[in-house]
Amino acid sequence: MAETGAAQANIGVVGMAVMGSNLARNLASREGNTVAIYNRSWEKTQTVLDEHPEAGFVAAHDYAEFAAALQKPRAAIIMVKAGGPTDAVIDELVKVFEPGDIIVDGGNALFTDTIRREKAVRETGINFVGAGISGGEEGALLGPSIMPGGSDESWVTLGPILRSIAAVADGEPCVTHVGHDGAGHFVKMVHNGIEYADMQLIAEAYDLIRRGTGKSPSEIADVFAEWNKGELESYLIEITAEVLRQVDAKTGTPLVDVILDQAAAKGTGAWTVQTALDLGIPVSGIAEAVFARSLSSKPAQRAAASALPGPSSDEFQVDDVDGFIEDVRQALYASKIIAYSQGFDEIVAGAEQYGWDIKKGEIAKIWRAGCIIRARFLNRITEAYAENPGLVALVTAPFFTDVVSKAQDSWRRVVVAATQAGIPSPAFSSSLAYYDGLRADRLPAALVQGQRDFFGAHTYKRVDAEGTFHTLWSGDRTEIEAEDTH
Amino acid sequence: MAETGAAQANIGVVGMAVMGSNLARNLASREGNTVAIYNRSWEKTQTVLDEHPEAGFVAAHDYAEFAAALQKPRAAIIMVKAGGPTDAVIDELVKVFEPGDIIVDGGNALFTDTIRREKAVRETGINFVGAGISGGEEGALLGPSIMPGGSDESWVTLGPILRSIAAVADGEPCVTHVGHDGAGHFVKMVHNGIEYADMQLIAEAYDLIRRGTGKSPSEIADVFAEWNKGELESYLIEITAEVLRQVDAKTGTPLVDVILDQAAAKGTGAWTVQTALDLGIPVSGIAEAVFARSLSSKPAQRAAASALPGPSSDEFQVDDVDGFIEDVRQALYASKIIAYSQGFDEIVAGAEQYGWDIKKGEIAKIWRAGCIIRARFLNRITEAYAENPGLVALVTAPFFTDVVSKAQDSWRRVVVAATQAGIPSPAFSSSLAYYDGLRADRLPAALVQGQRDFFGAHTYKRVDAEGTFHTLWSGDRTEIEAEDTH
Repeated sequence: MAETGAAQANIGVVGMAVMGSNLARNLASREGNTVAIYNRSWEKTQTVLDEHPEAGFVAAHDYAEFAAALQKPRAAIIMVKAGGPTDAVIDELVKVFEPGDIIVDGGNALFTDTIRREKAVRETGINFVGAGISGGEEGALLGPSIMPGGSDESWVTLGPILRSIAAVADGEPCVTHVGHDGAGHFVKMVHNGIEYADMQLIAEAYDLIRRGTGKSPSEIADVFAEWNKGELESYLIEITAEVLRQVDAKTGTPLVDVILDQAAAKGTGAWTVQTALDLGIPVSGIAEAVFARSLSSKPAQRAAASALPGPSSDEFQVDDVDGFIEDVRQALYASKIIAYSQGFDEIVAGAEQYGWDIKKGEIAKIWRAGCIIRARFLNRITEAYAENPGLVALVTAPFFTDVVSKAQDSWRRVVVAATQAGIPSPAFSSSLAYYDGLRADRLPAALVQGQRDFFGAHTYKRVDAEGTFHTLWSGDRTEIEAEDTH
Repeated sequence: MAETGAAQANIGVVGMAVMGSNLARNLASREGNTVAIYNRSWEKTQTVLDEHPEAGFVAAHDYAEFAAALQKPRAAIIMVKAGGPTDAVIDELVKVFEPGDIIVDGGNALFTDTIRREKAVRETGINFVGAGISGGEEGALLGPSIMPGGSDESWVTLGPILRSIAAVADGEPCVTHVGHDGAGHFVKMVHNGIEYADMQLIAEAYDLIRRGTGKSPSEIADVFAEWNKGELESYLIEITAEVLRQVDAKTGTPLVDVILDQAAAKGTGAWTVQTALDLGIPVSGIAEAVFARSLSSKPAQRAAASALPGPSSDEFQVDDVDGFIEDVRQALYASKIIAYSQGFDEIVAGAEQYGWDIKKGEIAKIWRAGCIIRARFLNRITEAYAENPGLVALVTAPFFTDVVSKAQDSWRRVVVAATQAGIPSPAFSSSLAYYDGLRADRLPAALVQGQRDFFGAHTYKRVDAEGTFHTLWSGDRTEIEAEDTH
């Protein structure tokens, strides 16, 4: 342990739980960094010091010591539980920091909290940066994907430090200055929403293959391992193979069969959907994934519903096993593109709503390594936005249009098979319905507008004229021009 | 116009836009009611007075006059725009009202705003009641379905007045004291969410019949009129027939074909989904309906996506027209039951979260007339909760289980047809996926838990042991007991 007293650290970390200590160790391992650390209880700090003497941490007993240990402008990353604990640490740091210093919240804060905090802290002259950090414990230690918001001024100091610890993809560090105030946490939130969709799609693919072909989890692990060599190559596909291959030591059966099938959630998926609803962006694939988890966690309902009948012929046996597996692979790829397309729509809408200058291609780039949704095809997203920065929907970029065109017959066969066999595939079917909705020449939304005008005089627009109209439904049923009441 | 000065009115209405003036006229038309009215601009008040001398309104020029015109305990219903305008009126009424008086907000307030307002107003000793009022302009005038929250004390005065103006179903007025503070607006919100789902399902049914059979809108109007004689009998089915039968005078074509197919929304559907996400309740059918509207309202995206390919054989022609229409009817009925089942799940969860004693059967009862989702089958919901007040999911009640059992082959055929033909049916397919998820013995949520444990050490539970577990994925892959971190 280095001595405190002299301002010798260029970066500090508050919070020595596993994410914080791993991030601090990552920082300390990079050339040029000296890391000050602080934790509310000294005991945890002492443990970190004892276990990682190589890190050369400058450990502080209190906030004053912590501030004194940092070179100016000071920069500290908070890694504590989101919510009240984060606010408490900010309050303490504001007392000991000075104008021009930088406070970074590296937790999973709700972006509106980050906007509020940035505004409050800015009044003290201190910079506040909400930074999304993805990659879990291992990412924090070895190189996460980092999505910082905050001011341009803060980025001058923070940029080199964050670049030093970020994951690297094709030689480029997976960090970029996303935009001001809450932009970083917003993008991290959408990242997590896409992660929910991706995981649910993989789960449905596994379930369909297992129930359709009778393959064992370890055989399906081989399928995923094979998929991971191709265009689906991604961290989630890779670890799915690992999980499916795992055998439970106690029972000798596949671990996936002894894990209780009730999925938990920590809230960022729900936030993504709630925010999308505020922004008017349909993120149906993400929503279905969030709902699939909450449905799974209703044991009393599921027990009561287990007597509900399935299809009369619920024997589901696929004849062409390889063909079916390839269909599922195509369905997964196409559905995944829809999930990303919806997620990027939300980023575009959020940027517009909150005045952030978010470069979509850069976002795809910094997700290529370090984070949970890292995947080969993110390069294609970067290319799509490079070719056409004004792209109105990811799925309409030539590369992705080509993929879904090729995939769609398979996609439809998979949804048909699931529907006939009674296998729940909410994310597959929702993604396909979204695709068909987006490309439809006419939608029955016209009828919905007619209904709304009938019962609520909500008015409608016409295809052949400007203006807003209302039919006098309870009068003589003539049409009048009307004020737009929506 | 009666003279002010003496406290002669037993109820007042603030806000003389169409909903407010219609509700005031409804009140005035009932035996025993004298109605005081007030509007920010006198001009509107004067118009109402001129047009409806039969109402005998006591018109006030300001809040002091309004308060003076009301018998004690005073009761006034606010019918102004939700949000700031409502708060402004409450502030004024609180100044002139006294402890024991009653302020009713009859607008579409977000229930958390109602909770906040009730708490603030309660401190003055005045009762605040958030009351959901459904039925649109016509309902307000002739008899709406009313969902009041608020204190028991307020209900003593309000009950008889609201019963006098509510719609009547089988001799019973469609109003009940839903629960305390925000309960009424919460239930009204879910009502609207179900309305979104119902409308979207009807729109999908129409679209499928039109594209599958080539029938004209007026022919499909006949189909809906026929359906309205059976178990689907409901206001929305009835008005769908009316809308589809309407011919545009300008073009001579069906009105539904000249209405722009971009559906608008006023927010209560989104609130329903956002609240469900907070409560952990999967309301996928409602969510898909909200998303279908927002998708329809993205003209730039839809234009760009119109080039996306559909199924290679996108000729969609059904052979057995009557059989197909009956399949669609069954699919509609089954999907509708799922939408209600999800909506009632949300009401149950909300009641638990906020401590409301909501009688589910009573809610179904007061929706039988006056409101937009009024329908014959609501009696079956009331019966289901009467038989089993602890029913964990509506769809598991014997009557509804029977319906979906009979419907499910049709339901599956319809989703298969839509999937193969490339016709977007997000609400039909989502409802069916939910049904299959709820009744599944095992869900692939187990794999999701495995993935979460792999990348985030989020732990999992086992089917064969108590406790929480974690596999040391980056270690020797043995399993350890772990703290539950979700």
